[in-house]
Amino acid sequence: MTVRIGVIGTGMIGRDHTRRMQQVLAGTQVVALSDYNPDAARAVQKDLVPDAKVYDRGEDLIAAPDVDAVLVCSTGSTHEPYVLAAIAAGKPVFCEKPLATTAEGALRIVEAEAAKGSRLVQVGFMRRYDAGYRMLKQVVDNDIGTPLMVHAAHRNPTVPDTYGTPMAIHDTLIHEIDVLRWLLNDDYVSAQVVFPRKSSHAHSGLRDPQMVLLETAKGIRIDVEIFVNCRYGYDIQCQIVGEEGLANLPEPMSITLRKQAHLQNEILMDWKDRFIDSYDVELADFIKAAALGTAAGPTAWDGYVAAITSDACVQAQESGQIVPITLPARPALYD
Amino acid sequence: MTVRIGVIGTGMIGRDHTRRMQQVLAGTQVVALSDYNPDAARAVQKDLVPDAKVYDRGEDLIAAPDVDAVLVCSTGSTHEPYVLAAIAAGKPVFCEKPLATTAEGALRIVEAEAAKGSRLVQVGFMRRYDAGYRMLKQVVDNDIGTPLMVHAAHRNPTVPDTYGTPMAIHDTLIHEIDVLRWLLNDDYVSAQVVFPRKSSHAHSGLRDPQMVLLETAKGIRIDVEIFVNCRYGYDIQCQIVGEEGLANLPEPMSITLRKQAHLQNEILMDWKDRFIDSYDVELADFIKAAALGTAAGPTAWDGYVAAITSDACVQAQESGQIVPITLPARPALYD
Amino acid sequence: MTVRIGVIGTGMIGRDHTRRMQQVLAGTQVVALSDYNPDAARAVQKDLVPDAKVYDRGEDLIAAPDVDAVLVCSTGSTHEPYVLAAIAAGKPVFCEKPLATTAEGALRIVEAEAAKGSRLVQVGFMRRYDAGYRMLKQVVDNDIGTPLMVHAAHRNPTVPDTYGTPMAIHDTLIHEIDVLRWLLNDDYVSAQVVFPRKSSHAHSGLRDPQMVLLETAKGIRIDVEIFVNCRYGYDIQCQIVGEEGLANLPEPMSITLRKQAHLQNEILMDWKDRFIDSYDVELADFIKAAALGTAAGPTAWDGYVAAITSDACVQAQESGQIVPITLPARPALYD
Amino acid sequence: MTVRIGVIGTGMIGRDHTRRMQQVLAGTQVVALSDYNPDAARAVQKDLVPDAKVYDRGEDLIAAPDVDAVLVCSTGSTHEPYVLAAIAAGKPVFCEKPLATTAEGALRIVEAEAAKGSRLVQVGFMRRYDAGYRMLKQVVDNDIGTPLMVHAAHRNPTVPDTYGTPMAIHDTLIHEIDVLRWLLNDDYVSAQVVFPRKSSHAHSGLRDPQMVLLETAKGIRIDVEIFVNCRYGYDIQCQIVGEEGLANLPEPMSITLRKQAHLQNEILMDWKDRFIDSYDVELADFIKAAALGTAAGPTAWDGYVAAITSDACVQAQESGQIVPITLPARPALYD
Repeated sequence: MTVRIGVIGTGMIGRDHTRRMQQVLAGTQVVALSDYNPDAARAVQKDLVPDAKVYDRGEDLIAAPDVDAVLVCSTGSTHEPYVLAAIAAGKPVFCEKPLATTAEGALRIVEAEAAKGSRLVQVGFMRRYDAGYRMLKQVVDNDIGTPLMVHAAHRNPTVPDTYGTPMAIHDTLIHEIDVLRWLLNDDYVSAQVVFPRKSSHAHSGLRDPQMVLLETAKGIRIDVEIFVNCRYGYDIQCQIVGEEGLANLPEPMSITLRKQAHLQNEILMDWKDRFIDSYDVELADFIKAAALGTAAGPTAWDGYVAAITSDACVQAQESGQIVPITLPARPALYD
Repeated sequence: MTVRIGVIGTGMIGRDHTRRMQQVLAGTQVVALSDYNPDAARAVQKDLVPDAKVYDRGEDLIAAPDVDAVLVCSTGSTHEPYVLAAIAAGKPVFCEKPLATTAEGALRIVEAEAAKGSRLVQVGFMRRYDAGYRMLKQVVDNDIGTPLMVHAAHRNPTVPDTYGTPMAIHDTLIHEIDVLRWLLNDDYVSAQVVFPRKSSHAHSGLRDPQMVLLETAKGIRIDVEIFVNCRYGYDIQCQIVGEEGLANLPEPMSITLRKQAHLQNEILMDWKDRFIDSYDVELADFIKAAALGTAAGPTAWDGYVAAITSDACVQAQESGQIVPITLPARPALYD
Repeated sequence: MTVRIGVIGTGMIGRDHTRRMQQVLAGTQVVALSDYNPDAARAVQKDLVPDAKVYDRGEDLIAAPDVDAVLVCSTGSTHEPYVLAAIAAGKPVFCEKPLATTAEGALRIVEAEAAKGSRLVQVGFMRRYDAGYRMLKQVVDNDIGTPLMVHAAHRNPTVPDTYGTPMAIHDTLIHEIDVLRWLLNDDYVSAQVVFPRKSSHAHSGLRDPQMVLLETAKGIRIDVEIFVNCRYGYDIQCQIVGEEGLANLPEPMSITLRKQAHLQNEILMDWKDRFIDSYDVELADFIKAAALGTAAGPTAWDGYVAAITSDACVQAQESGQIVPITLPARPALYD
Repeated sequence: MTVRIGVIGTGMIGRDHTRRMQQVLAGTQVVALSDYNPDAARAVQKDLVPDAKVYDRGEDLIAAPDVDAVLVCSTGSTHEPYVLAAIAAGKPVFCEKPLATTAEGALRIVEAEAAKGSRLVQVGFMRRYDAGYRMLKQVVDNDIGTPLMVHAAHRNPTVPDTYGTPMAIHDTLIHEIDVLRWLLNDDYVSAQVVFPRKSSHAHSGLRDPQMVLLETAKGIRIDVEIFVNCRYGYDIQCQIVGEEGLANLPEPMSITLRKQAHLQNEILMDWKDRFIDSYDVELADFIKAAALGTAAGPTAWDGYVAAITSDACVQAQESGQIVPITLPARPALYD
């Protein structure tokens, strides 16, 4: 069976997912496109899927009878209504981050899906599909005993001037917030942020680096360094300390070169190269579940928890205090 | 356009390629199956491709009008006639190793394809599609200056009793023979084999380990350790020494674990896990070219050169001498 | 010139330093021994330095005219009076940790030495003499730009039941407290301690692991994991994050072994092996300075600052609060 | 007891050993110096050992009653007579490489020492004292089963124009010749040399790189790459392949730095830095044995075997053939 996909939002990521569906992955076909700028949708149609139909309104794409499942790749503020519409239509929907721009919005999606009574939403937390993190989860689950601490780092070589202090949470830490919950099978109960000496390479409006300290319900302590002007590379580090041993996220594969008085491995400079393979795996998982009329992978609840946690971290940035994180009861759908 | 594939030989590798075409890769569909044991073909049909047609004879599968391209995954002795039939039919054909069981047989394929005047054959040397070797080729081409030497190793934890001394060449070294030519863009001119002290874990009929010394037309010296009872893992090593620096094939990605007084990374024990991803890339390349009615990747000529070189290495095993390797003129098709 | 040494305290470390002076290092000779248990002193005399004189009282050893310099290796509570006596006698004195059992005691030594007007005291912070830390200091001073953060860990496989929560500071963290100040050329301004989920391998009276968060005058943020039941090894980690790059303390040299499906390096289990070479370098430095009638290396002031900082960390353990660290003016002698 | 040393030859290495005896190591004192250029000897006397006596003739230094043991650091052609004189005088003698300039000369020393009936000679093969090689020997003896193969490399960034093809054996490979025998507890039976494509950085009179293939009495096969214009660093590699596992000589300790898109460790450029610590250990071993009137460490027989093996390798360079290596019966003194 071929899953017929409609893509809403045909910017960089929407175009790339369309190519992925059309040229890389088995079992799927893009039959519909929509963008707030119809010319953008038509350009993707022309380049990649001449047989797809272009819709002016995402709502119409969702409603189209030949669309089995939906990808929401449009601008963040539109995610909530499109996802709600897909749920209402009973169609599996893959939604890029963020699920909604507010925790309240994400909760509305959770409630709609829970009311529907079956999984329809997958949130685009692609790190869960990265081969390195999957290896790490295997080892955390089997080889290091009870986890006690996590030391992590999220470093970018540089950021544009539009990147402000709260974006270190919403755009950067958001990935650790989700993937660490998944690795640890745990939830956060408090957040604290401390600001080290500021790098002279950070622009005036940005406090960089930052150290985020999270505590989980089981008492695990997590420290995440966020350093978005580290200059040397895009570098994602994660070490889990367990009762019996320690495990580290692998470095991306690279050539060991001996040259000019150095034993050296290249470090990626562009974040787009770091998790590129995981997008294929993530969407293959979506297609496989969509063929059965359901969804797998990161849930709407995961998207909601990420939103709640981000909000607490931003509050902790502003207050300098330890901010508690509390969650409502989790709907049974997500057990 | 969907490339319609016929698979000849539905043993382990034929079944796996069928699954890959059907469930993993875009742009293709398995429409025909054949095996010398028709029950085996029907089992794959039932499990993976209910709509495919099962043929008693591979020749009929090749001739079927709805078969655009052919995969030859049958036993080695049948490769030559099937590939020749596909060439005669003008259909792209992917042939697992070996291209033929003799150098003469491989040469007949080369001549048939050259007479046809366009690429139709891809040989299943999957290492050229491995991400690590591809990184290595980039670095060899750009960063280490003129290559002068190669130090390589091909180690298996153990082999069955049916594995004899010449199989170290035909089944094991064959991969290095092809991939090193590709990495170095060079051909071999001589081979020598020396036998170190034999491992007590090797069965009585097998000389293990072996050291194969190859010389190329450009004067590069290659040493390859073959050690198929190394016990500790399936381990593929390759170091290229250039005028300006040295590059090593990356280790497969793995978790660094600190546990029980050791800083440790797992080494694969099963060769099937080592290059698993490269099969996807290899067949995607075949499908992409087949959609255009042609073939890409390792050529029939590469298969022929591998056969000639293997023969020289086996002769060097037997004689203890340095055995020259000479090639006929290469048809222009392969320039 | 041969520096004639008197050793006070002939337990494990005193005996080892006597051997070092006598059998390893040039330019020195142990001429006097003293221990609160005279039999212990006589045993060392018999085994290692038959020509040395045994004194009942450390004070008499310090006063002996043929003693040029003193090593204080006795129990901690006796350090202060012996060091003060050596200062009064104008003799260089090497004092094992701690310089005194209270910050006030350490300050008395600082004041006595400052009043004397010249360096006479070296404190036994041997990590400053470790080859790895010295390499790290070179790189921190030259290659990574302004330091912004430090991520460190101090892990032991296990501790005896007598090891309580504050010992994690006084006996364990004390080394990081000193060596990080030296690496960063900075002082601490506050300390916070958070307690992760407790390891089930920690005895009931011990909170283990702990995370100590230090802030320096220049705004550098330091996190040190202390985990003394980590089971897998004695493991000292230190990463300095600078504006231009990151540097890690090297792992101790070890063999990379491929065996039993693992690529592995041994991790030390015994702390005594980790910095063993640095004791030689530390005492060679002491002897070289003592030959000139003075002292080099870690100062009494360093010992005092370590004491003040330790006290703040213990207070932070107890209160759960961020505890400020304030220092009196530093005597000019230590500029 | 203090061992009183006479140093013959006060060039770079003689001066350095004098400093080592005088300023670093316990239990010894340099009391006599000699050099074919008396001014050189007097300069060392002035700088390092004012109380030492300068002799015009090495023979007189050896004969001096207050000289307990002798270091021969003079030019290679003078080693044999000085060592023979020391043996005749019954004094322990440390001789820098080579023991003699011919195998016959080395054999005369062996015979003289064997006739004397006790060890007096230590040859300056310092690698046996290197911490990395010592770790490797431990592992080879205990952890990897019967050794079957060795893959080694000896690389220099560059060499002067005076360095000719045979020097790759006499000055470079000589270290591997000795240390591999010691690691494997084995002797060589044949040598072969193959010449890869020549580096364009090698001067016209030098064939560089070279591959030396050695076979041992137990059947172990060794390949050593010699590449003295590798440009990137002074790099010593050694991998021992055993029946149960593989072990590698450790890299020299260095800082792992993340900077400018690279994860990097510095590689030494100067050979003098690589084994610097081993000189201390080597001479401490000499002093310890000399205090007992004997010698330890690498023997005259080891020096002789190195000479015989070097000669065979040079012959193999010239002939392109596999050259057998045969040894006379080993005197019982060396069992």
